[in-house]
Amino acid sequence: MSPRTVRLALAGCGTVGSALLDLIERRGPMIEAEQGLRFEFSRVLVRDPERRRPVPVPRDLLTDSVEDFLQAPADLVVEAIGGIDPALTIAREALGRGSDLVTANKALVAEHGPELTDLARRTGGTLAFEAAVAGGVPIMRVLRDLLSHGRVQAIGGILNGTCNFILSRMDRGACFDQALEQARAAGFAEADPTRDLVGLDAADKIGILAWQAFGVPPAELRIRRIGIVPDPDRLVATGLAFGGVVRLVAECRRTTDGAVASVEPVLVARGSALARVRDETNFVWVRTTDGGTVELSGPGAGGYPTALSVLSDVLHGNGNAAVTASGSSGPHAPDDDTVRHRWIVSLDRRNDAADALLTAADAEDVELRSGIHADARSSRSTLRALTPSVARPVVHRVCEALRHRGHPCQLVRYALDDE
Amino acid sequence: MSPRTVRLALAGCGTVGSALLDLIERRGPMIEAEQGLRFEFSRVLVRDPERRRPVPVPRDLLTDSVEDFLQAPADLVVEAIGGIDPALTIAREALGRGSDLVTANKALVAEHGPELTDLARRTGGTLAFEAAVAGGVPIMRVLRDLLSHGRVQAIGGILNGTCNFILSRMDRGACFDQALEQARAAGFAEADPTRDLVGLDAADKIGILAWQAFGVPPAELRIRRIGIVPDPDRLVATGLAFGGVVRLVAECRRTTDGAVASVEPVLVARGSALARVRDETNFVWVRTTDGGTVELSGPGAGGYPTALSVLSDVLHGNGNAAVTASGSSGPHAPDDDTVRHRWIVSLDRRNDAADALLTAADAEDVELRSGIHADARSSRSTLRALTPSVARPVVHRVCEALRHRGHPCQLVRYALDDE
Repeated sequence: MSPRTVRLALAGCGTVGSALLDLIERRGPMIEAEQGLRFEFSRVLVRDPERRRPVPVPRDLLTDSVEDFLQAPADLVVEAIGGIDPALTIAREALGRGSDLVTANKALVAEHGPELTDLARRTGGTLAFEAAVAGGVPIMRVLRDLLSHGRVQAIGGILNGTCNFILSRMDRGACFDQALEQARAAGFAEADPTRDLVGLDAADKIGILAWQAFGVPPAELRIRRIGIVPDPDRLVATGLAFGGVVRLVAECRRTTDGAVASVEPVLVARGSALARVRDETNFVWVRTTDGGTVELSGPGAGGYPTALSVLSDVLHGNGNAAVTASGSSGPHAPDDDTVRHRWIVSLDRRNDAADALLTAADAEDVELRSGIHADARSSRSTLRALTPSVARPVVHRVCEALRHRGHPCQLVRYALDDE
Repeated sequence: MSPRTVRLALAGCGTVGSALLDLIERRGPMIEAEQGLRFEFSRVLVRDPERRRPVPVPRDLLTDSVEDFLQAPADLVVEAIGGIDPALTIAREALGRGSDLVTANKALVAEHGPELTDLARRTGGTLAFEAAVAGGVPIMRVLRDLLSHGRVQAIGGILNGTCNFILSRMDRGACFDQALEQARAAGFAEADPTRDLVGLDAADKIGILAWQAFGVPPAELRIRRIGIVPDPDRLVATGLAFGGVVRLVAECRRTTDGAVASVEPVLVARGSALARVRDETNFVWVRTTDGGTVELSGPGAGGYPTALSVLSDVLHGNGNAAVTASGSSGPHAPDDDTVRHRWIVSLDRRNDAADALLTAADAEDVELRSGIHADARSSRSTLRALTPSVARPVVHRVCEALRHRGHPCQLVRYALDDE
């Protein structure tokens, strides 16, 4: 049987794009033998065609023109360029003419996923994005499986490799600046890591998971988001003070009227499953209505793991997932306002900070029974209080009131006693 | 669009079969709405059609005749009967006429998987068995994905829910008899749990994983197997004495000439990933050549989790997986004989046991530097020695020599210092 030739147009030849080129070069003969598919690149879109590349690409395949790229004959378009522009143009054009599109672009999927999936459904194309969430962890495929019988109740995990790299290095003694430097040196933090540090990257990813799991378009999902900035050193010191470690956790649960999500620092016990997630590893758990909890972990970033997820989509297709899952049966999770957690509120010890904290807590009926504790060990003197169990909106209002009075505070969800 | 009707013939109406009937009953409307499929059972094979069942089945669907069952019209046959006979007959007949077969039967797949897959390939049928390994953990699907680019280097985990239930209950103070009783009461141990306790069940499963990952037919796979019997109480006491806990771990790694596998008790640190796997949970890790390690955990047994995996196969198909993967590229793992571990050898303290142990170790050049320690705390007085790093065959020979001299010993792989 002679192999079927599949023409690929690749947009972007950075970390993921080059890894994909290399993989297909090295694994090509095996893929041909086992799957009867032969891949040929018809065009590779790059910013600078003259630049030297780690993986050599024939010069005539390279183009820096989106228009030229889109005119190349292609059975499947791989978008590994990142960001919205020109990724969105490429996606719309490719899907608009009925091509299959595989993307690793979480921002694109979070912002335009539903539009692009609708477009693909109309034209007969497919949109697949296994690599967009948790790089090398096959969560999309697992989720689609679990979903097909409407049984996902909640989903969450550690979805941002940059923050996790930084936090887990800080566990081992590094200060934030050192940890960020290490993350950059290892290739797990970009020149400007702001989107990672404020939790926007994790929010994009939980938005995509929520869309897939519960049918709520990412743009309509309520996400309460707290990053690890502005004061990651204080955050980690807070964790230490309570004998645990901090992780940036993203979660989404089904509610009676859709879904609600959070991205926030959480204090977890050393040795817990979340604390054991180190460096750029990602971790995803899926709680199901009948079948217990499935957990997955694996490399969350890096060119090869991400390119392998792209290759999975290219080989097996995974497109146009079950976005009608909002009609799922099974018990609904309680509304966000009824789920309670304990929280650590920390803020600078200056002026009337302690009074402001007491007043803000009083106003929301949050009784700070364990008191307000001063910690002079950190670079700046810090006040900390552990709240009783309160719902997320309540503690967010306390925080807002403090900010309003000139005392910005840092929140850490307290999950030290959870298993 | 009117739904397509899929006729199912179900062999076996025990824990898994009834859960499947119930699921399809409850989820039917949603599956019809989302996937355009309507399932109808055409026949259900049971041992006693007159018995009362938790999930009611119309009497005219029930039959106790394999012949009658096989004559029922069916687009897909689900085999949830367990064991080889009549499961093998059913599988051969169904696949022989080109039907799709979904099975949860690890013994069947481990013993006859390659034959049945070949048959399916010839007739155009498919054989799918997601539920046969690690009940509710979608390992087959993940493995097929990872495999498609030939990148699995080693695979392993905790695959036997019964032993793990027992061992993790014993961690918390139960003796073996109590733990087994609890496992039975919870439905995670059969009346005769021998196959579980001697490691045969885990061996079947690692055999299936090895077949899928490395293309080695289960029947040809070398598996070094040690169960948790004959003396689980001593095993757990040994773990305690070293400050860790014991888990029954199955592993398979690629070698230059195929693959080699083991099933054996391993001493792991409290708080390690393996120690954290409790009760009937299963845990699978897949080490890949480029992409780091992917870990999955989830319910390893129980009617509903297993039935949901069956339903995944029914809905998505997962048949005739990549058994040609033995041609995989990438670096090969070292041969079994060169992988070294430390081992704890424990045996009854009687007669010349200490001398016999020293002699057997000497004969294999295994220097017991840390000495032989006596432990009188356990019911019978025990001798224990921790070996230096030696290859598996060496320590197995030591054990064999001891057994030959009338001192059967118990082996535990020492992985307390591993991460």
